[in-house]
Formats: sequence, C-alpha cells, structure tokens
Amino acid sequence: MDAAQSAATHVGTSRAAARIRHSAMEMFAVHGYGSTSLRDIAADLGLSPGAVYPHYKTKESLLFAIAIEGHTSVLSQVTAVDAADRPPIERLSATVTAYVRWHAENHLRARVVQYELRSLSGPNLKVVARLRRATSNVFTAIIEAGRDSGAFSPVDVDATVLAITSLGVDVSRWFPTRKYSDPATLAERYSEIVLMMVGAQRRSDR
Amino acid sequence: MDAAQSAATHVGTSRAAARIRHSAMEMFAVHGYGSTSLRDIAADLGLSPGAVYPHYKTKESLLFAIAIEGHTSVLSQVTAVDAADRPPIERLSATVTAYVRWHAENHLRARVVQYELRSLSGPNLKVVARLRRATSNVFTAIIEAGRDSGAFSPVDVDATVLAITSLGVDVSRWFPTRKYSDPATLAERYSEIVLMMVGAQRRSDR
Repeated sequence: MDAAQSAATHVGTSRAAARIRHSAMEMFAVHGYGSTSLRDIAADLGLSPGAVYPHYKTKESLLFAIAIEGHTSVLSQVTAVDAADRPPIERLSATVTAYVRWHAENHLRARVVQYELRSLSGPNLKVVARLRRATSNVFTAIIEAGRDSGAFSPVDVDATVLAITSLGVDVSRWFPTRKYSDPATLAERYSEIVLMMVGAQRRSDR
Repeated sequence: MDAAQSAATHVGTSRAAARIRHSAMEMFAVHGYGSTSLRDIAADLGLSPGAVYPHYKTKESLLFAIAIEGHTSVLSQVTAVDAADRPPIERLSATVTAYVRWHAENHLRARVVQYELRSLSGPNLKVVARLRRATSNVFTAIIEAGRDSGAFSPVDVDATVLAITSLGVDVSRWFPTRKYSDPATLAERYSEIVLMMVGAQRRSDR
C-alpha cells in the first residue's frame, strides 16, 4: 500500500507524540484549528509549550500528522473488507459500510481530517490527497466492475463515487442524532441507499 | 411560510446591516467563526468596532442572522420549484436540483450556515432547526407521495432524506473542483443519483 506507507513516515511514532496528536485532534474538533494554538494543546496535556516542540515544530505539522493518520485509517478499513473476487454488490456493500461506520465511530477525528484540510500547505495537502484518492479508487474499481458485469446500472461512476464520499464525510458533521446513534445501523442504512444508487438489487434473503 | 416569517424578524434589514453580514460571512467561511472577532469584521469594512454595535451586539447575533438568512434562502428556493400536483419524480428532481444548486452557488455562505451551527446557543439553534426541518419536510412529503403511489420503491424515508441533505450540504465543503465547477451540471448529476436512490426510473425522453 504505497500511498499509506510513504505517508506514514510523517507521523510521529512515540507514545508522547500520539498523546499530543490525540489532544490536538480533540481541540481542533471542538474549537476549530484556527482558534487553537500549540500552547493550548500543551496546556491541555499539562505540558510546557517547549515539551511539544521536539515532536511537532508547528501547528500545521500536527494537523498534517493527524490528517495522515486519519486518512490511512479510513483507507485501511475500506481495503480490509474488499476482495476483488467477490460479487460487486457484496464488495460495494462491505466497503460503504466500513467507510460510513468509520466516519460515525470517529466523528470528531473525521471532522478535523475532512474539514481542516484547507489549512495544509500545498506539499502536505498532496500527500493527504494521495491517500484520499486511494480510498476513492476502491469505490471506483468496484462500481466499474459492477457496471461492466451488468450487476449495476450504467451509472456515472465519478459522480457516484463523489456521492458516496459525501454521504460518508457528512456523517461526521451531524453524527450522532437522537434517531441515528449506532454506527452499525447507520452504516447498514447508507449501504442500502448506495446499492439503490447504482441500481443493484439485493437478494431479499437477508 | 411560518418558520421563515418568524425567523426573518431576527435579521437586520438595513443596508449597513446587510454589508456587515456579508463581510462576516466571508470571514467566518475563510478563517472560521472561532478565529474571527467583531473587531476583525469591522476592520474589514473600514469601520470602527463601535459602528457594528448598533446592528449586532455580539458575534453570535451576527452568526444567527447569517444562519437564518441562509436557511430561509434554501427553503424558499426548494419550495419555489415544488408543486404538490406534479408527479413525484418531477418534484424530487426539481427540488433536489434547487437544493444542490444552492449549495454550489453559495458554497462559502453554506459552509458557515451548515458547519458553524454548534456555535449558536440553544434558543437560537431552535429557530434555525425549524427552518432546516421545513426544508427536510419538503423532501419527506415528496418521497412519501412517490412511495405511496408506487412511483418510488418502498425506501426508508428518513434515511433517504438524510442522504439527500448530506449530498447537498457536503457540496459546500468541496465545491468547486476541476471536474465539477458548474452548479447546474452538478445539480443535474446529483438529482439523477437521488432518483436512482428512490428507485425511480426517469423516462429516457430527455
């Protein structure tokens, strides 16, 4: 997994760095990236600002590490449940379920990872964009396979992949609500909606 | 239009207030609500901080006015193209097109209106939530009508309305891209996707 491996080199590996990332992620999610300083993050952990510096020199390097970690996690969840030799309907159902579920279970992390990307500089954004593209490519390959085999309708593949991405990403904006607070239930509903979107009929033997 | 009328009383009506809202909306969209002060907004307009005060006493009252104005605008666009005596397929296509198009054409405003809501206090959020619900109710009524008449499949109405909302709202996060930069084209693609979602087959006489 090329994009993920090369991106991983930018994430700090020590336990201290992981604690800093976690605290930063929560503060970015709650207060916004723009309103949070490295000093705030250090204070949240009971550290002096100087204690963060050996791990992350800038606030952006922290956001970058969080973004890579998050997008690598999505990508690995989605690829883990995919298998090219299975029927396209099963593949789409499994991968969309994993994708939506990740965004529900990690909704705070997902907000940072999906909404604060514009704060990354060009070269950093490129690394993250590669990971995002790798995830989209999984959906693209499945929809093309389903369309070519006749399991799906002849849909607009790019627009459909964009719609799947939007359904997943937007979960992190609103999840949870009173009605949808269980990630697995939501993921199942959304995976059924996506099967409708591509014109796949599930057998009613569930 | 009850929710819209009662909400409108919270929006300043003078030209000066409109200029302040517009500047605030752009600054909130670009820098985030948390990172923008009333002083920044005044400075952006070349005003003293005291000149904003007669119109908006607090930053939240400005966000509240922007949110009401935005959500009223979405609601009026969607209701303007709906007509209960037309076939459900046409109604869904027209309203989803208007909804997606609004989010593309107003993507900066939409980001503020959709993503900064958590910064509103409870009573203000309730007013905005009523407007949002009024828009969702338009989609709900159409999908129920289509499902009951057999024009649509027996879909999960709530989950489908949630998915339509997500498709529209998420446009404001990413729009425009190199591939999708024309609001009308995107709105057409997404409206086709939503028709698939509900199992409606458009006649191929376009």
